[in-house]
Amino acid sequence: MSTFVIVGGDAAGMSAASKAKRDDPDLDVVVFERGEWVSYGACGLPYYVKGEIQSLQDLVSVTPEEFREERDIDLRTGHDVVGIDPDDRTVTARHEGGTLTQSYDSLLVATGARAVEPPIDGIDREGVYTLGSMADGKELREYVARARSEGDLQQPDSGPACQFLETCRGPVGIVGGGYIGVEMAEALAANDFEVHLFQRGDRILKQFSEATSEAVREHLAKQDVAVYLGAAVNELAGGDAVEAVLTDEERVPVEMVLVGTGVRPRTELAEDAGIELGETGAIATDAYRETNVSDVYAAGDCAEAEHVVTGEPVYVPLALTANRHGRAIGQTVAGTPTEGGGVAGTAAVKAFELEAARTGVLDHEEARAAGFDPMTETISAKSRAGYYPEGGTVNVTLTVDRPSGRMLGGSLVSEYGEGAVHRSHALVGAVTEGVAVGDLANYDLAYAPPFNTTWDPVLTAAKVVEGKR
Amino acid sequence: MSTFVIVGGDAAGMSAASKAKRDDPDLDVVVFERGEWVSYGACGLPYYVKGEIQSLQDLVSVTPEEFREERDIDLRTGHDVVGIDPDDRTVTARHEGGTLTQSYDSLLVATGARAVEPPIDGIDREGVYTLGSMADGKELREYVARARSEGDLQQPDSGPACQFLETCRGPVGIVGGGYIGVEMAEALAANDFEVHLFQRGDRILKQFSEATSEAVREHLAKQDVAVYLGAAVNELAGGDAVEAVLTDEERVPVEMVLVGTGVRPRTELAEDAGIELGETGAIATDAYRETNVSDVYAAGDCAEAEHVVTGEPVYVPLALTANRHGRAIGQTVAGTPTEGGGVAGTAAVKAFELEAARTGVLDHEEARAAGFDPMTETISAKSRAGYYPEGGTVNVTLTVDRPSGRMLGGSLVSEYGEGAVHRSHALVGAVTEGVAVGDLANYDLAYAPPFNTTWDPVLTAAKVVEGKR
Repeated sequence: MSTFVIVGGDAAGMSAASKAKRDDPDLDVVVFERGEWVSYGACGLPYYVKGEIQSLQDLVSVTPEEFREERDIDLRTGHDVVGIDPDDRTVTARHEGGTLTQSYDSLLVATGARAVEPPIDGIDREGVYTLGSMADGKELREYVARARSEGDLQQPDSGPACQFLETCRGPVGIVGGGYIGVEMAEALAANDFEVHLFQRGDRILKQFSEATSEAVREHLAKQDVAVYLGAAVNELAGGDAVEAVLTDEERVPVEMVLVGTGVRPRTELAEDAGIELGETGAIATDAYRETNVSDVYAAGDCAEAEHVVTGEPVYVPLALTANRHGRAIGQTVAGTPTEGGGVAGTAAVKAFELEAARTGVLDHEEARAAGFDPMTETISAKSRAGYYPEGGTVNVTLTVDRPSGRMLGGSLVSEYGEGAVHRSHALVGAVTEGVAVGDLANYDLAYAPPFNTTWDPVLTAAKVVEGKR
Repeated sequence: MSTFVIVGGDAAGMSAASKAKRDDPDLDVVVFERGEWVSYGACGLPYYVKGEIQSLQDLVSVTPEEFREERDIDLRTGHDVVGIDPDDRTVTARHEGGTLTQSYDSLLVATGARAVEPPIDGIDREGVYTLGSMADGKELREYVARARSEGDLQQPDSGPACQFLETCRGPVGIVGGGYIGVEMAEALAANDFEVHLFQRGDRILKQFSEATSEAVREHLAKQDVAVYLGAAVNELAGGDAVEAVLTDEERVPVEMVLVGTGVRPRTELAEDAGIELGETGAIATDAYRETNVSDVYAAGDCAEAEHVVTGEPVYVPLALTANRHGRAIGQTVAGTPTEGGGVAGTAAVKAFELEAARTGVLDHEEARAAGFDPMTETISAKSRAGYYPEGGTVNVTLTVDRPSGRMLGGSLVSEYGEGAVHRSHALVGAVTEGVAVGDLANYDLAYAPPFNTTWDPVLTAAKVVEGKR
């Protein structure tokens, strides 16, 4: 009987475990997870903090008991793997003060990522949070709950601490204008906090197109979120607790700070075992997610994946890739070698009453490095037939290779419910298949007045780009 | 100076006129339109009848004056073209009792379609309507307005004519369960009519998957629309005015009947000029939409187009194709030969609080005729993260070629707003590019909890099909 050992019990790990066991019920599948939570939807944490989800338990798609009893997976929570010995094909784990050794035939390293702690003075002060784990989510929700229960909402005219009409708790600071920063701005503002968001670069959501970034920035401003661009945070000042965010230009008083400046892969365990990292700093794998060490796989937020446009390894730690690659590894280990596919760098975000998505390569430098001659156009179009009673605006940005027209990337933003995110599905396909933008313009996309204009905004954008290249 | 003459001033005609003139301002562009309306959104008529759009004028995207003054197009409304002479390169038109002859260098036949009048006894009775033209829309709206103003809404307990709790005007009958039938059921029910819908075949929306048809049928029933399947209508009985719909099984009293049994191409003018029709009965063209007669093009609801999956000519008279092919012809006539692309048979419909879309080849017989070995699977999945406060269900049907996995077609249905239609964009791409379903399952589609589950329903469907083939 063969043993498949998995280090890390979240998306990649549990997808691999489930698929391997389903495909080969004779396989012994052992999962070591440091914490108590497995297979949880960390992407839901902002909505838990916001209060739209009532329990952390709601974020768990399959419970440890279900994995053990229904799926016959030997899931060991509270087990911290401290060593991998590829020669002996064993892993060593600590559990309740003792250690144990487990042999494996195949191994998956799915150790995930940790929140980046940028080198900011005072980042260890009380009241400074990150949002990477379920525990982080719990702490933040408790902070919000405490703030809410400390007396009634301050009134707008109650004092100088309250700059904005509608946001009267806090003030609180968010360091970083990526997904987490934007989603947490919504979560905190919805709880009547005065929110200050600091972005080091010149725009938020920098992976999206400039047009999308600007649309979201404008919208945040309308929602009374103070957005500071080009604002590198030098210090989180205070005593025991944080009291102010300091940039070169400003000193903004705050009661709490959320640091959301991205994640980096947890690779120490792999490195110690001689598993190679790629240039991105995450674990390098082949198309089957196998590392340089035979029968040792890596997937999820600790691993690289190849980009569907450039073919180059990239580090894009997102949930779908973790699930997909975990599942592919499970299938491979169970006997059917399976590639999990590359990544397109696709991402979606809700920002208050906007929705946005991006895919592929938008950055011109990145495109040129891959041998393309990029051009980018943005159009703005009605989301539904002009005469239809509902509707809004969709902005579509397309980046293509000028000589060939090959679709390289896209970015969309619309009012929430007006379809920017689901429309991005069309662009993911075009980017993945290397479709020429002129051919995309000829796609026979669905049309009816309640859903779009005769030429869907995606087609209009493609038509415009094709006309200009 | 060259002259481009266009017969028919709706989607295909005006798209061609606008594009040709924009690309070559020296071109003389002459459009003959029988009626007074040009460039109107006939797809919006059900919403005009429903009352959500206030004026027919709202359906007009560009007015005749704008075409004439801003786009410098010689648009002649009220001109009925009665003959084309390809040898002389002239067309003859009737206008206000006289006739005129116009020479052309290039000609576009964009004569559109007419509503099919099925051979039903009594179809000429008063109170029997179709919905193809702006005039039809006006008559139907007037009918609804008259019915609404004739006293207050009857109460549910007012008599045997009122079978349903909420629908108490009429009763009215709809013959045909296609888009028009379904959209008009919504429009009439929203105006408190008791609606009876008769479908000759065994399901409504027969171009969609069986799962989609059944979901919509169930939903119509919940909305108190009486749907009769396998119900060929033999007679619309009555005196001067229609009084009842007669099938083999039933005699259903009605005050009004809408016949929505599809359209057929208006080809008489073309046929008389020696322009060849295809097997579908619509005008045959090449990839540039040129007919067998040199410099004579055809596009829109009077013409065929090649299917992107089978390569075979099909007749799918829909708005986007008319616009796209018209535009391509305009570009060709202005000097840049341009193919307008094939059709995927994509369509979308809103049915009360559902939305549905379909694309490609779903019918197994059609697939087999094209050399495929089709298989079909339907899955049902959550439209958003299970823990997210909003959300519903998306049903996805995929049809693929079993040996190769090639995507042949897809059909989706969800609650209105839960994204079946925009998600279909991904399937159009996959069908058009001939993507294998296993590759589709590996697409890096956008994910965030407010928009989908980690595996979007489209991916889940692809995964399931790939696993079963």
